[in-house]
Amino acid sequence: MSELFAEIISIGDELLIGQVVNTNASWMAAELNKNGIHVVQVSAIGDNGDRIKSALDEAFKRADIVLLTGGLGPTKDDITKNVLAAYFNSEMVFHEPTYEHIKVLFRLRNYQVTEVNRMQALIPERCIPLKNNHGTAPGMWFEFGEKVAVSMPGVPFEMQTLMREEVIPRLKQKFKLGIIYHKTIMTHGFGESALAERIEAWESALPSAIKLAYLPQPGIVRLRLSISGDDELQLKEIVHQHCRQLTELIPELIFGYDDVLLEEVVGQQLKQLGKTMSAAESCTGGYLSHLLTAISGSSAYFNGSVVSYSNAAKHQLLGVPEGVIEQFGAVSQQVVELMATGARQRFFTDYALAVSGIAGPDGGTPEKPVGTVWIALATPESVQSQLFHFGEHRGRNIRRSALAALNMLRVELKREFLVVGKGCCME
Amino acid sequence: MSELFAEIISIGDELLIGQVVNTNASWMAAELNKNGIHVVQVSAIGDNGDRIKSALDEAFKRADIVLLTGGLGPTKDDITKNVLAAYFNSEMVFHEPTYEHIKVLFRLRNYQVTEVNRMQALIPERCIPLKNNHGTAPGMWFEFGEKVAVSMPGVPFEMQTLMREEVIPRLKQKFKLGIIYHKTIMTHGFGESALAERIEAWESALPSAIKLAYLPQPGIVRLRLSISGDDELQLKEIVHQHCRQLTELIPELIFGYDDVLLEEVVGQQLKQLGKTMSAAESCTGGYLSHLLTAISGSSAYFNGSVVSYSNAAKHQLLGVPEGVIEQFGAVSQQVVELMATGARQRFFTDYALAVSGIAGPDGGTPEKPVGTVWIALATPESVQSQLFHFGEHRGRNIRRSALAALNMLRVELKREFLVVGKGCCME
Repeated sequence: MSELFAEIISIGDELLIGQVVNTNASWMAAELNKNGIHVVQVSAIGDNGDRIKSALDEAFKRADIVLLTGGLGPTKDDITKNVLAAYFNSEMVFHEPTYEHIKVLFRLRNYQVTEVNRMQALIPERCIPLKNNHGTAPGMWFEFGEKVAVSMPGVPFEMQTLMREEVIPRLKQKFKLGIIYHKTIMTHGFGESALAERIEAWESALPSAIKLAYLPQPGIVRLRLSISGDDELQLKEIVHQHCRQLTELIPELIFGYDDVLLEEVVGQQLKQLGKTMSAAESCTGGYLSHLLTAISGSSAYFNGSVVSYSNAAKHQLLGVPEGVIEQFGAVSQQVVELMATGARQRFFTDYALAVSGIAGPDGGTPEKPVGTVWIALATPESVQSQLFHFGEHRGRNIRRSALAALNMLRVELKREFLVVGKGCCME
Repeated sequence: MSELFAEIISIGDELLIGQVVNTNASWMAAELNKNGIHVVQVSAIGDNGDRIKSALDEAFKRADIVLLTGGLGPTKDDITKNVLAAYFNSEMVFHEPTYEHIKVLFRLRNYQVTEVNRMQALIPERCIPLKNNHGTAPGMWFEFGEKVAVSMPGVPFEMQTLMREEVIPRLKQKFKLGIIYHKTIMTHGFGESALAERIEAWESALPSAIKLAYLPQPGIVRLRLSISGDDELQLKEIVHQHCRQLTELIPELIFGYDDVLLEEVVGQQLKQLGKTMSAAESCTGGYLSHLLTAISGSSAYFNGSVVSYSNAAKHQLLGVPEGVIEQFGAVSQQVVELMATGARQRFFTDYALAVSGIAGPDGGTPEKPVGTVWIALATPESVQSQLFHFGEHRGRNIRRSALAALNMLRVELKREFLVVGKGCCME
């Protein structure tokens, strides 16, 4: 199997005035890459016929596959379809199944089908139309010799569904792509370089067939293992073996696999144990609660929180004695532990997390500089707490504090699984 | 003044595997566009010498200005500098001021300067080095005849500072760019097309010299007025005149100007009035508090909130009688108003916002479908509440609810300004 090259052409004036960030291109590049197709170039151009044609010429000099998005709407400035018809010397024909699909979509939304919409069923004769389940503009698949061009709408959800259900399966078939197996390991607690140092021996012992990629995000580093070949079972077996070795090496840093979120893991743990939680937030200011409640179904285990952004609120709503705040300061082990027990009692939950720190940019002192954060966890048996030193950036301090709090609860709940004798949900 | 065309070349393998979204390119495109320079194409390519050269060839066929980012780090895979030296037939020379700057940066961070770092002070003889105040790799400005190429690091903060402080001023000078004046009007409450319909008469009466752009975000539509010419005072005068007309036409929809955030406006209002606020959040789950506390200095006016994600919490922490929740349901005018008064009393604040709704995807009923949201505002005098019907998407419902709540408080505080006789901070 020889190497396969692709290019992405994103069409739309909004990309050239900076109104829209080209997230479609990075999503498509990741999807192609996962399937062993190398992306050589991503180009963003305007809704302009000559530019679309010359971008196609340039792309086909380098690539076997050209994927285009955008410019398929019903309005006058959307010209991609006609340009492609001319480029591939193709007449426009009326595609009855597409028209039927448009009519169904409009009936569902209680809209009238206009002549403009009917025109969306006109497609170049030479293409294979790809049904767009979520929109009116079909995808278009052009083949000529060993090369392929595919045009898709620019609406992210429509494009993604078309890619997953139509484009990737057809590319696999046309180019007889081998199997690529990926396993992503989600870690929290170490930065990219510290993590690389920690797992150096394991990494150098990886067989050359396995590729390792570090994918860092604020507070989280994803490790992606990839392998390609023909025998899927065998590929999985090899990757899982090295994945298990890594899990034994850094069990405390791994919170899950395959792009799961830390707040999802904690939610799954709580649900499986039949336990509940609450929170008391000072410097995270509601962000921890927001992460938890962004997960649908979280009301089953999350009872609520107090955002105590004033000392009076810490006293009044969480029961922290005023004297303790005065003596030790709001950012202290004593106060954060009392916040956690206070939340646990008032929300009647099994667990409670509390965060108190200095997010910055103001409020730091020589003893407690910006980035100083205390986090506490109250359990049915005890209260534990930990001191963190994050950086100087307010937004990142808030995010890293919330993730560290979630991770403290995750580690505690994992211990709980061992006690009650159930297998941990993540392994 | 003839039209000026630019292209952006983003260099880095991480862009082609979908690991990184190309936010640099959209930021740069917006910045160029604001200054009257048209972007013809954005290309993302890998760290590959031949590809960089051919991308430069292609770009210069179409553009007067080519801006490159990325590939300037100290490691082996960063090759942009050497490729540019070869492309512009230029020797590498040691640039002493850059080396001094690197040494200062390293001293501040307590790092040792290694030979690899020293090499970053080597630059092509033909370029003008642009000082990078936030990093070790300088920007590089190449001129040949009427064309310009500029290479910048890919770190967003470093690139943005270089663009603002060096690149844009130099482009203005080199190409004798006229003045472009922009005014952005921030609106909340109407979608893009409804807003367009509402202001149709005003829009069609705009002089042709003023360009209007609709820039929609979830829950917010920005309207940008632009005009170009030579006499700055005159340009401002014309734009402000039409801006004032629009403000008179839709005063309730405009919350500010020039990219201010709704949560900033509310914060400024509260600070100027010397008032405080708190919140009670059900379906927004902490997101409203997060928006408010993401603003540094918010503790001056925001005392805290209760995220009441269970009926028990609504009763226990906000004092909503259990009977009222049973009779009317948690998503009701009665409950949301009691949540607001409860928060106002318990946090000892002048104002309190409360939100209760069905964010989805589950929990909807025929009477209260997903997207049904009640929002209440308690003031020192009374409680007001409003019913909203948002969409089906959980994340967007949460964001739109929080923005609608903030806007309710903004409108109330604006009235307060009239009462106390101060001018509203936004006008």
